[in-house]
This record gives sequence, C-alpha cells and structure tokens, in this order.
Amino acid sequence: MASWRKLGLIAGGGELPVVLAEHCAATGRDYFVARIEPFASAALESHPGVTLNLGAMGGRMQALKDAGVDAVVLIGQVPRPDLSQLKLDERAQAMIPTFLAAASNGDDALLRVLLEEHEREGFKVLGAEEVMGDLLAPEGAWGAVTPTDAHHKDIAKAAKIAAAIGALDVGQGVVVAGGVPLAVEAQEGTDAMLARVASLPATVRGTPEARRGVLLKRPKPIQERRIDLPVIGPKTLQGAAAAGLAGIAAEARGALTVRRDEMIAEADRLGLFLYGFTRAEVGEM
Amino acid sequence: MASWRKLGLIAGGGELPVVLAEHCAATGRDYFVARIEPFASAALESHPGVTLNLGAMGGRMQALKDAGVDAVVLIGQVPRPDLSQLKLDERAQAMIPTFLAAASNGDDALLRVLLEEHEREGFKVLGAEEVMGDLLAPEGAWGAVTPTDAHHKDIAKAAKIAAAIGALDVGQGVVVAGGVPLAVEAQEGTDAMLARVASLPATVRGTPEARRGVLLKRPKPIQERRIDLPVIGPKTLQGAAAAGLAGIAAEARGALTVRRDEMIAEADRLGLFLYGFTRAEVGEM
Repeated sequence: MASWRKLGLIAGGGELPVVLAEHCAATGRDYFVARIEPFASAALESHPGVTLNLGAMGGRMQALKDAGVDAVVLIGQVPRPDLSQLKLDERAQAMIPTFLAAASNGDDALLRVLLEEHEREGFKVLGAEEVMGDLLAPEGAWGAVTPTDAHHKDIAKAAKIAAAIGALDVGQGVVVAGGVPLAVEAQEGTDAMLARVASLPATVRGTPEARRGVLLKRPKPIQERRIDLPVIGPKTLQGAAAAGLAGIAAEARGALTVRRDEMIAEADRLGLFLYGFTRAEVGEM
Repeated sequence: MASWRKLGLIAGGGELPVVLAEHCAATGRDYFVARIEPFASAALESHPGVTLNLGAMGGRMQALKDAGVDAVVLIGQVPRPDLSQLKLDERAQAMIPTFLAAASNGDDALLRVLLEEHEREGFKVLGAEEVMGDLLAPEGAWGAVTPTDAHHKDIAKAAKIAAAIGALDVGQGVVVAGGVPLAVEAQEGTDAMLARVASLPATVRGTPEARRGVLLKRPKPIQERRIDLPVIGPKTLQGAAAAGLAGIAAEARGALTVRRDEMIAEADRLGLFLYGFTRAEVGEM
C-alpha cells in the first residue's frame, strides 16, 4: 500500500467524499478537501479545504500544493461538463485538446486524462480503497439474507452482461430477474435505471411482496481502478427495494460501499440480500 | 422464397400487423388475421379474421385451420404475460412446462417455443419480410440526409455494442453520441429508451438545433429472424428527433420498416438521416 503525508480529496457530488472526509477526521489523518463547485456536498464545508469550480485546474493544484498535499484521491460524481460554460483557468485551457481527444473514448478515458495531469504535477493518485480499505465490497453475504440458487443464476448472468457492456465502456450496472435482462445502465446512472425497472410491467419484475431479480454492479474490465469504481449505498438499496428486486450484488473488492452498516440493517429489515461475488463463482476463472 | 396458399397473420400490437394486413388486401392475397386480444390494433377489425386472447392457443390454431390457412406469420408486440392471469385453453396448458423452461432463457427462446408449436401443427412459419420483402431496411441512406464521418463512427460503435448485448439476449437498440454510449435498450423498449435520452443532461446529448448521435437497431446475432426483427417506424423517428439525435441506423435487411415513405419525408423535413448499414462497413467481415 502506498504511503503519503497529507491527503487531498478532490471531491465531486454524492456521499462517498463525505464518508471519506469523516473517516480522515475520525482517524486523525492530515487531509485537505478540494470541493468542486457546485457538485460537492454542503456537508464537506466543515472540513479543511477550498471550494473551486471544475475549470480552475491550475488554481486547485496550487491550493493543494500550498496546503502541503502530496497524494490525491479523485472521488464523487461530476457530470460531463459543457466546455463552453466552464470558466477555465490557464492550466485547464491547455488541457482542452487532450480532453476533447479523450472525450470520444468514453468516461474512463476522460478520467484518465485528469488523473495523469495530477501525476504529472507530482501528486500520488490513490484509489479511495487505498485510503479506506474497509470501503471495498466484501466477499459473500453482507447481512442476514443470502441469495438462493435462482438468485445466483441471475447474478452469473448479470455479471456476464456487465462484463460485456463494461468492456465497451457503456456502464457498470445491470438488472436481471429470472434470467431476463430487465435494464442496462449507460449515462442515466443507477438510480434512474432502478426507477425504470420499478415502472416495467409487473409481469416481468418482482414486487416488495414477492421479490425477484438482482441489481449487479462491477467495474469495467478496462477500468482505471483508482477512479470511478462502482458505488453502492443506502440510496442504491432504496431504489432496488422499490423496484421489487431480491437483492444487490457487487464484485468483491470491485465496488465501494457507503454507510454499509446502515445499508445492511435496512436490507435485513426489508429482506433483500447484499452480496459480494467473486469472478470464480461467476465462471470467469 | 417459400410458397403458400393462404396466409395467417397472428397479430400482436403495434402498426406492423396493420401494414402487413393492408398489403395483403391491396395485392389481392388470400389472408386471415388472428387478432390477439387485447393487444392487436382496432384497425385490424375490418380485415377477415378472428379475435382471441393469448391463452387460446388451441382455439386459434383451429380457427386458422378452419379458414384454410397453411402458413403463418407471428407479428407485432405482445408483452410478457402473467401466466396466472391468462385464460389458457387445453393446448396452451399443455405448453406451460416448455414455456417456463424457455422463459428463463430470454425473449428469443420464448418466441421460438411458440413458433415450433405452430410448425408441429403443420403450419409453415414465415418471416414478415418473406411476405412483404420491401419492408426490410434497405442499404445506404434512405432519404436526403446522409451521415457524416462522425455519425459513421457513432454507427460503428453502436453496432458493436448492439452485437454484444444482442449476443446475451438483452435487447436490440443502442444510442451513441460523439463516441459516448448514452443508452442501452433492455425490457423497456425503444420508445422509453429514447424518452430517457431526451431527459439526459444537455451536455451529453444533442438538441433539435444541434443534432448529435444515432439510434441504432439490429437483430440479435442468435435471433430467429422469422420473429422479432427490430422495427423502425414514424414513432421511432419522432422519439429520435425529440431526443436531439442526428439520425437512425438499422442493419440493412436486418430490420423491418413501417410506413417508410412517411418516415423519410418527415426525416428530410427535420434534418435526420435514416441509414441501413452493412456488417462490412462496421468492420465485421
């Protein structure tokens, strides 16, 4: 595992950056939060740091250096920006050609450019799981509910579909129920996909009274694992429950969990399984 | 091409069965429409035929035989039924075990069972394109608008994604804009997928003022081509236009078109391309 003196959290939206900042504060680590405006959660404002817009690339790197940061983690959601609307500083303007070239190769290529720019500037770039290993999805059942044989079949099929769409940089999430692929995630995100499943005809999906099917998330095979690992949290569970699913599966050590204890308690209460599958058990090695 | 005396149209929902019935009437062919209640369009009621619910399997076959039908075409949309709600006749009840076994193998397996049951009864089973060849998507640009180089790149990428999800029996439609996969179709259908694209952030998609991206449809590689070929019609065009897309592509001879002339006129007016791609041009042979 890498070592560093002071950690910079480059923070987009969602709960994951908040969880990580709270973890740093609770364990007495030296850290600094570069909040990306307007995406970063307001809950981050009580932590040491700076708030800058997405286009302030040079300004942000300087602020991180001034604070003594030597390693950064890129964390949280940032929607694809409209370049014409961004206030780009000089550093960001110099990156435009590289960005445009990468943009047509998908989200992952775009993030890789950002990551490399920070490495060029002398920062170590870490994955959230290097900073907070217990965020990673564990293997097996996380709570009291375990998948049945039928659920394991859905998990295997969904894992295969997710691998295929991931290899093409489409997305990370898939819903399969009773062998039938109900939904595949692309740009709309997991929450919107689950809302769509909830509105499918009741004949193809489960219900809270008779749960069927699984939401599965796994990293893209080509993915730079330091950024953009799939995330599962209480909101994911809420969406899966409302869609009548029987549970959620994630690749063991291939997804980040947010507020896992809270999620497990709620899943146990609702009767959903939470499960970390290995590649071996879905027939991949 | 197969030959037959009298054609039975086993008709689900959508416009395609209506187009085919009108074609039979206009060309003086002998035909009989088995309307599936409640899905078949009311426009089919003026044609010779019978109206029966989905579960009246034996009754429908008998009606087709009594009418002198020797070849059938299965055409139009039928949502996945709730078996417990269906009124199944004896013949249909006998098929339940086969249906249940096929159901977990996806839509295609399910349709194949239906098809084989009709073959066992002595009917020829035809594809809509055998009956009405000019329904098939032609090669190249259909109207006045032609795809640019950037659109051809999106077409190639979408074709690759559609092949991958099709091989796993997920679906037939994909939207790609500027190299980014915006949406992948599963159980929700093309219209819902296009509505979803229209609601994505404006930064990732096109607009009616600055159109970007393509809707692509192609058959699943494993698909029984006599049933369930992808369909493109005026409604598809309307959805693609509203989603800010630059055009629609279909595999040449691998999709059925509904009211193509009307669709071309409207696409020309709105500035969208309609295009039949070959496997060779997307790098497949």
